[in-house]
Amino acid sequence: MTHNETQREVEVRGHLIDSMILTRIFDRIMDLNGEFEVLEFKIGKQKTDYSYAKLLVKGKNSKHLQTILEEVYREGAIPVKLQSANFKAAPKDMVMPDDFYSTTNHQTSVLVDSDWIEVENQMMDKAIAVDLTKKRAWCRPIREIRKGDMIVVGDAGVRIVPPERPREGMDVFQFMSSHTSTEKPIQALAKRIADDVFETKKKRGKIIVVGGPAVVHTGASKSLADLIRMGYVDALLAGNALAAHDIEYAILGTSLGIDVDNGTSRHKGHRNHMVAINEVFKAGSIAQLVKNGKLKKGIMYECIKNKIPFVLAASIRDDGPIPDVVTEMAEAQRLYKEQLEDAKMVLMLSTMLHSVAVGNMLPSSVKVVAIDINPATVTKLLDRGTGQAVGVVSDIGVFLPMVVSYVKELENS
Amino acid sequence: MTHNETQREVEVRGHLIDSMILTRIFDRIMDLNGEFEVLEFKIGKQKTDYSYAKLLVKGKNSKHLQTILEEVYREGAIPVKLQSANFKAAPKDMVMPDDFYSTTNHQTSVLVDSDWIEVENQMMDKAIAVDLTKKRAWCRPIREIRKGDMIVVGDAGVRIVPPERPREGMDVFQFMSSHTSTEKPIQALAKRIADDVFETKKKRGKIIVVGGPAVVHTGASKSLADLIRMGYVDALLAGNALAAHDIEYAILGTSLGIDVDNGTSRHKGHRNHMVAINEVFKAGSIAQLVKNGKLKKGIMYECIKNKIPFVLAASIRDDGPIPDVVTEMAEAQRLYKEQLEDAKMVLMLSTMLHSVAVGNMLPSSVKVVAIDINPATVTKLLDRGTGQAVGVVSDIGVFLPMVVSYVKELENS
Amino acid sequence: MTHNETQREVEVRGHLIDSMILTRIFDRIMDLNGEFEVLEFKIGKQKTDYSYAKLLVKGKNSKHLQTILEEVYREGAIPVKLQSANFKAAPKDMVMPDDFYSTTNHQTSVLVDSDWIEVENQMMDKAIAVDLTKKRAWCRPIREIRKGDMIVVGDAGVRIVPPERPREGMDVFQFMSSHTSTEKPIQALAKRIADDVFETKKKRGKIIVVGGPAVVHTGASKSLADLIRMGYVDALLAGNALAAHDIEYAILGTSLGIDVDNGTSRHKGHRNHMVAINEVFKAGSIAQLVKNGKLKKGIMYECIKNKIPFVLAASIRDDGPIPDVVTEMAEAQRLYKEQLEDAKMVLMLSTMLHSVAVGNMLPSSVKVVAIDINPATVTKLLDRGTGQAVGVVSDIGVFLPMVVSYVKELENS
Amino acid sequence: MTHNETQREVEVRGHLIDSMILTRIFDRIMDLNGEFEVLEFKIGKQKTDYSYAKLLVKGKNSKHLQTILEEVYREGAIPVKLQSANFKAAPKDMVMPDDFYSTTNHQTSVLVDSDWIEVENQMMDKAIAVDLTKKRAWCRPIREIRKGDMIVVGDAGVRIVPPERPREGMDVFQFMSSHTSTEKPIQALAKRIADDVFETKKKRGKIIVVGGPAVVHTGASKSLADLIRMGYVDALLAGNALAAHDIEYAILGTSLGIDVDNGTSRHKGHRNHMVAINEVFKAGSIAQLVKNGKLKKGIMYECIKNKIPFVLAASIRDDGPIPDVVTEMAEAQRLYKEQLEDAKMVLMLSTMLHSVAVGNMLPSSVKVVAIDINPATVTKLLDRGTGQAVGVVSDIGVFLPMVVSYVKELENS
Repeated sequence: MTHNETQREVEVRGHLIDSMILTRIFDRIMDLNGEFEVLEFKIGKQKTDYSYAKLLVKGKNSKHLQTILEEVYREGAIPVKLQSANFKAAPKDMVMPDDFYSTTNHQTSVLVDSDWIEVENQMMDKAIAVDLTKKRAWCRPIREIRKGDMIVVGDAGVRIVPPERPREGMDVFQFMSSHTSTEKPIQALAKRIADDVFETKKKRGKIIVVGGPAVVHTGASKSLADLIRMGYVDALLAGNALAAHDIEYAILGTSLGIDVDNGTSRHKGHRNHMVAINEVFKAGSIAQLVKNGKLKKGIMYECIKNKIPFVLAASIRDDGPIPDVVTEMAEAQRLYKEQLEDAKMVLMLSTMLHSVAVGNMLPSSVKVVAIDINPATVTKLLDRGTGQAVGVVSDIGVFLPMVVSYVKELENS
Repeated sequence: MTHNETQREVEVRGHLIDSMILTRIFDRIMDLNGEFEVLEFKIGKQKTDYSYAKLLVKGKNSKHLQTILEEVYREGAIPVKLQSANFKAAPKDMVMPDDFYSTTNHQTSVLVDSDWIEVENQMMDKAIAVDLTKKRAWCRPIREIRKGDMIVVGDAGVRIVPPERPREGMDVFQFMSSHTSTEKPIQALAKRIADDVFETKKKRGKIIVVGGPAVVHTGASKSLADLIRMGYVDALLAGNALAAHDIEYAILGTSLGIDVDNGTSRHKGHRNHMVAINEVFKAGSIAQLVKNGKLKKGIMYECIKNKIPFVLAASIRDDGPIPDVVTEMAEAQRLYKEQLEDAKMVLMLSTMLHSVAVGNMLPSSVKVVAIDINPATVTKLLDRGTGQAVGVVSDIGVFLPMVVSYVKELENS
Repeated sequence: MTHNETQREVEVRGHLIDSMILTRIFDRIMDLNGEFEVLEFKIGKQKTDYSYAKLLVKGKNSKHLQTILEEVYREGAIPVKLQSANFKAAPKDMVMPDDFYSTTNHQTSVLVDSDWIEVENQMMDKAIAVDLTKKRAWCRPIREIRKGDMIVVGDAGVRIVPPERPREGMDVFQFMSSHTSTEKPIQALAKRIADDVFETKKKRGKIIVVGGPAVVHTGASKSLADLIRMGYVDALLAGNALAAHDIEYAILGTSLGIDVDNGTSRHKGHRNHMVAINEVFKAGSIAQLVKNGKLKKGIMYECIKNKIPFVLAASIRDDGPIPDVVTEMAEAQRLYKEQLEDAKMVLMLSTMLHSVAVGNMLPSSVKVVAIDINPATVTKLLDRGTGQAVGVVSDIGVFLPMVVSYVKELENS
Repeated sequence: MTHNETQREVEVRGHLIDSMILTRIFDRIMDLNGEFEVLEFKIGKQKTDYSYAKLLVKGKNSKHLQTILEEVYREGAIPVKLQSANFKAAPKDMVMPDDFYSTTNHQTSVLVDSDWIEVENQMMDKAIAVDLTKKRAWCRPIREIRKGDMIVVGDAGVRIVPPERPREGMDVFQFMSSHTSTEKPIQALAKRIADDVFETKKKRGKIIVVGGPAVVHTGASKSLADLIRMGYVDALLAGNALAAHDIEYAILGTSLGIDVDNGTSRHKGHRNHMVAINEVFKAGSIAQLVKNGKLKKGIMYECIKNKIPFVLAASIRDDGPIPDVVTEMAEAQRLYKEQLEDAKMVLMLSTMLHSVAVGNMLPSSVKVVAIDINPATVTKLLDRGTGQAVGVVSDIGVFLPMVVSYVKELENS
């Protein structure tokens, strides 16, 4: 940008109106007290057509213009006169150049020598590292940056495709948009989610479950175990508590000492979760506990039996944790990401910690269903700029069994 | 009390230890910086035996002692030397004498001429009016006090029986005590409540349902309608919204415009609740709408068909309200109380407003089950000094259908 | 509409893009599986310019088209070929004609003999009654409809102006848009609200406060009393509890028996709110209690002293209620509406019941600030299609004092 | 226990009534359908006296009796005929003997050769390892158990001292008992907590702060920084987010991109937390960033400047995390425990994850103040069998500044 430049032509394509792309661009300019003229506007004549807009964006001075443009580019606009992306080498391991480009969770491309290179493993708040010879680009977390990595700086030559409002079919994501409510017709909602799980799997889409211990406490573990055995779950991401309580329930019938089947507090139940954890240590691992014949049912059992990968990430509040739990967080994050690759749908079941972690690792195009009894948790999980998320404020202990029973009906129909 | 009295002997009988009566008495004395000596203490040798304690309560001066005694009496103690109750006439309509005795929700008796008269229709925060010739006493709300009514003043001659911890059987109230939790085994809990509803009705106990519109929005209205038809509900206490949305659903299939069965937003649905309300005005009443053949199913339909009384109380936020709604609040309160007389069990389904109202009208001996997805609402409803209340934090749309299906199982077994 | 008509030209003007008007129109058509062509589109060249769009809307058949058009009209579009509104007389008192037009809370006009008549006292979910000779139109609740009233039916000749995104100044409504969050910088937010209260009053805008008893329980009553005395409050809308606890606090220093200033439970405090209520009955009214010299401070005192009108609406859960409370709900609603006329700003302080009531009575153009510690309450209050509402999830007991102290700073600067 | 023993004498000393010890013992016996006789009962004559009870506990058979006794011992009773504790060697590293005794968080002693040895670093749900020659005993987490460690098995020879109701002074813990409420007088509550912080520090009691990022987001970081500088904080336990956002705020004025001081969304603010993290990586550590002169204020700055130890524990959802964060969870737990040793008071500020972790590590005698805007979080934190915990449902962004300003007043008075 030249020093005295105060206006620039930008253009944008897509479902500008109904996906609110143009709305957001106008918003950003006005929020920053900028001015604009619409130089050209071709609206899609039919609902499947793309629209096109060319705008002249004006700032009060060169710096003001730059400020506005940076925001406008993050909404999907690009300058009419294309500029290549700029790079700087990382000065040392785990350090990004000062002006590093910080990613969104939307599909992103980088202009290198007139070629748009799509960024791989898109995630939010990461740097983009580019291999200029192989013409590949990746989102890279700060701890994985190595001295000399070529990192995109500034926002020239970066193009974003914001998520579009889904317009085909009638899946739950259209049905609910991003609305969260405690007063929705809950059985209808369970049916829609069951449909979506069923249809996603029919098309061989990868489905990931992220779950918290409330799944076990509330008595929904049998339903999740069924879903795994029926082949709908491609990986389970959780923490120590889900596994420990699932094993406690499978071996001793309790969850945190409460008899899950009749609801009473079991005698000496307070020690049951420690007994379960001790059993896993004795066996050496959950898989070994299954092999020994001691673990015969439940969520973890079905994962082992059906060779469904699981990653258990430690947290500071763990008892134990059991030997399978990954206690090194950087490693746990790496393993989570590995499982999330190419996921089509993620079910977040009553865990804020692990769901936020997974949300940070997902591109905005992945379908997300977040279920929690706490509306604040659901709101937080949906508040990540994705057009493909649905939040359900309900009781996992009754809601999940209902979803799974609808999936079974679909299988038998 | 003489002016220079600084200590007094009091006594108390009951399950002093396990119902925590003595604990609370000691607490009150210490909170007020009083002193006490235990003059006599006979502990029940077996668990069904009553215990007895005689204490010497000491204050720093006469006033301090009086202060302490007032608190101690509210926990069930009475002076060893009995004093009769004192009365003053109400100076005018709707005005209590200044020193009026303000009631608890525990069973209360008044000492008149050496006879303990039990107070009728026990409620919290009311005055006690006594008919000295007929030897009867009643809790009376301020607006129903008439000039000249003899009102108990001070706390001499008033005896309270605090609620005891239930010790027979294994009903849900023992099982849960007053605990509220979002992580209970929810199916086990539904079973316990179903058992209790079933057993209460088998003994011809009166069951009252207090319900909010979320019952309809979430799709649980069919379950409540079933419960009414099956004979488990003796009266329905609600507001305009439950009735309006139930009728909207019965006539048009929607609740606030959302199709309850498939969850989609119905075209022109926004006007449906007004259409439903208009239909009731056209017919003149809900009963007339049933008679006309326009209302053929649902909660209100079953009430009319099965001659189950209902009271719909207006509120400031009502649309309409429909003609059956009682818009005068003093009258609505009177009608609620009438239905609550001799109730054995009250189910509070997702309504804070009406549930708090009902809670204020109940003696502490009535069993209460409060279900709401908001833990703060459940906590508030249970926080009324009753030993017979259980709170369930769950989604009424899935929890109520589960309870009702267990009741059906019990009927068929 | 002719029987075989399957397409119609409609047009719409306004800030189509940034107020998302066009987005919503496209959405509605696609949701209903309709088709459309954009015949003409003039986008505002600068940010203050209006845009204009002419669309050809297509349905599969005449009925389908009609369905789509009804939705599109509710978003602000009108047919290019104007049609006059249609009317039917109300068949009897409190009954609307079957096809009544059900209002939104947006500014609405009705086409009568080529004149657009603006509807007065705009509210949601009401009928429109028209005086054809005086050329005036009003929103009318069902209970106020009289036999023979001319009521708008169908949606021909009805035009809506959807609310626009505010674009001038930097008030809190721009700053927050409709976002609700528990993790906002809370002191900055308090400052913004104080600015807005101050500026609104400087322009002599009418400010209404809707408040619940938590204002008193949490110790914020002094702040609200200050705000009234300083002249920022034009009317107070509340219930029995706020008044009873405010008077309890003013006379006895407690709220529900808890000493507000040092937080301890006061001896015999349980009866204090009944004592306060009894005092008002003795005096005859709150005003009389002030005149008697018994009520000397607090919220109600300041209302009386400064001749600020207040309306206390009864509810089914009231103790008492005190004589000033309006126990007839239809009358209470009428009185609320009277005070809300021409309001510019409404502060909703920790009361869901009264806030929902007020929300139902407000046109979408009134600024609303809703403060509650429960995020679900705030979400519900904002979910009413208004572009002028801001929700604050905070503790009224500390937040309101902070706002009021900022207002004082503004007064002194 | 002999095979045909069905009854046993047990005894218990302490404030049996007002600390509810006897109540709980009776409860346990009755819950398990056991019988008991009170053989002897000496009640403390004055409120500071201990009481003594000797009970004969009866089971239906030897196993039933054993079941009852195990529960009764956990409430503080011990057999009249003392038995020594039993031990088994841990069979391998990280494996407890099957019948391991699982600890409570109450003060515990183990009877070894007629000596009661007090267990060190008391925590819940751990094993007790005993050094028989040195006569020392410790709570030991499963991962720290080494082959051959002598572990207590069964419950013979284990004595617990349940927490007593505090009876001196008028600190916040007496004032609030364990009540949690959103409708407490919040300013009075802030004063009480300030008093307690002030008094605890005056007696050189160790105060630990556990904090979440909401402290920074809501604008309370300056208050926490003040509290540290004034010498009231002996260690800070937190996660990556608190540190990252504190540094973001100190360097860039924003928290997650929002300008904390004026509440607006800062241009390019989305990248600010990554910039802050990158700055720490560039410097190498937070201490180095202070030394470089780049970090000049805030929570972390005050820790470094005043040599207050801090432990930042990683979690699966971290961005970065910054180099100071401990990413190995077993190590992080060890470091947390190290700082918690001998703590007198813990302030838990708006973080569920770290607060639960700390709660698990604390004996029941440590005072805990838990502040969160979500009542469910506060309830969960208090639900750990401690008589010394107080929960405040309020907005940390306004509540903490109020507490700190009261502490300053106390300093200046």
